[in-house]
Amino acid sequence: MENTPDALVRHFIEALVRRDLDLAASMVTEDFEYDNVPMGKSFGPSALTDTLAGFFSMCSGIDWEILHQTSSGTIDDAIVMNERDDRVEIHGRWATLPVAGIFKIHHGKISLWRDYFDRQTIVDVMTPPS
Amino acid sequence: MENTPDALVRHFIEALVRRDLDLAASMVTEDFEYDNVPMGKSFGPSALTDTLAGFFSMCSGIDWEILHQTSSGTIDDAIVMNERDDRVEIHGRWATLPVAGIFKIHHGKISLWRDYFDRQTIVDVMTPPS
Repeated sequence: MENTPDALVRHFIEALVRRDLDLAASMVTEDFEYDNVPMGKSFGPSALTDTLAGFFSMCSGIDWEILHQTSSGTIDDAIVMNERDDRVEIHGRWATLPVAGIFKIHHGKISLWRDYFDRQTIVDVMTPPS
Repeated sequence: MENTPDALVRHFIEALVRRDLDLAASMVTEDFEYDNVPMGKSFGPSALTDTLAGFFSMCSGIDWEILHQTSSGTIDDAIVMNERDDRVEIHGRWATLPVAGIFKIHHGKISLWRDYFDRQTIVDVMTPPS
């Protein structure tokens, strides 16, 4: 892949959509911060894989789309921001989670991933239909 | 000011912090879309000023800070994204609203402002203390 901060984040999101958590974990730093703003932070590659393994186990389909992405800096020190529609199929229903994310890149790895979204929207999607 | 998409959005946020809604309204297009994702959309310069006049009337203090901002494109056609701490003083209490925003720029004006945040966080801030 092209060795830019923009390409790194696109590659990371593509790995997650393919449920390739080992690859995704290899792309973050040891002190990686994973911050789902209204729900809380966790740290390290295993926090990423543990959190997403749990969430992905609920999903029969994953189709995240980057709508817009902007960045500044180099692969050694960069900020990347994106706007995404994180579409997931849960309880047999496709739903869209509108998200804006910020990523910090240090020396070719992701040291921070912080997502902004509405907590209730994701709670509603994860709640079984009555 | 410097005539870049980045400077335009910083100037716009500064105008809002100064409660200069006339200046802010002059910086958006006639078909401006104002989208507070978990709460809904409104359109046009007057939608911006009406929404924010109502919100600002609750605020005894406004101190919004841009933490990070990235952009792509030119002043004629650009995307700007930022991560902000929108600090407001309401009911005698300072609170921080963590927000990520995306702005589209067309021919030197803002045609879209979309903010991602947690709805309950802002509801809690606007609720009087018991």
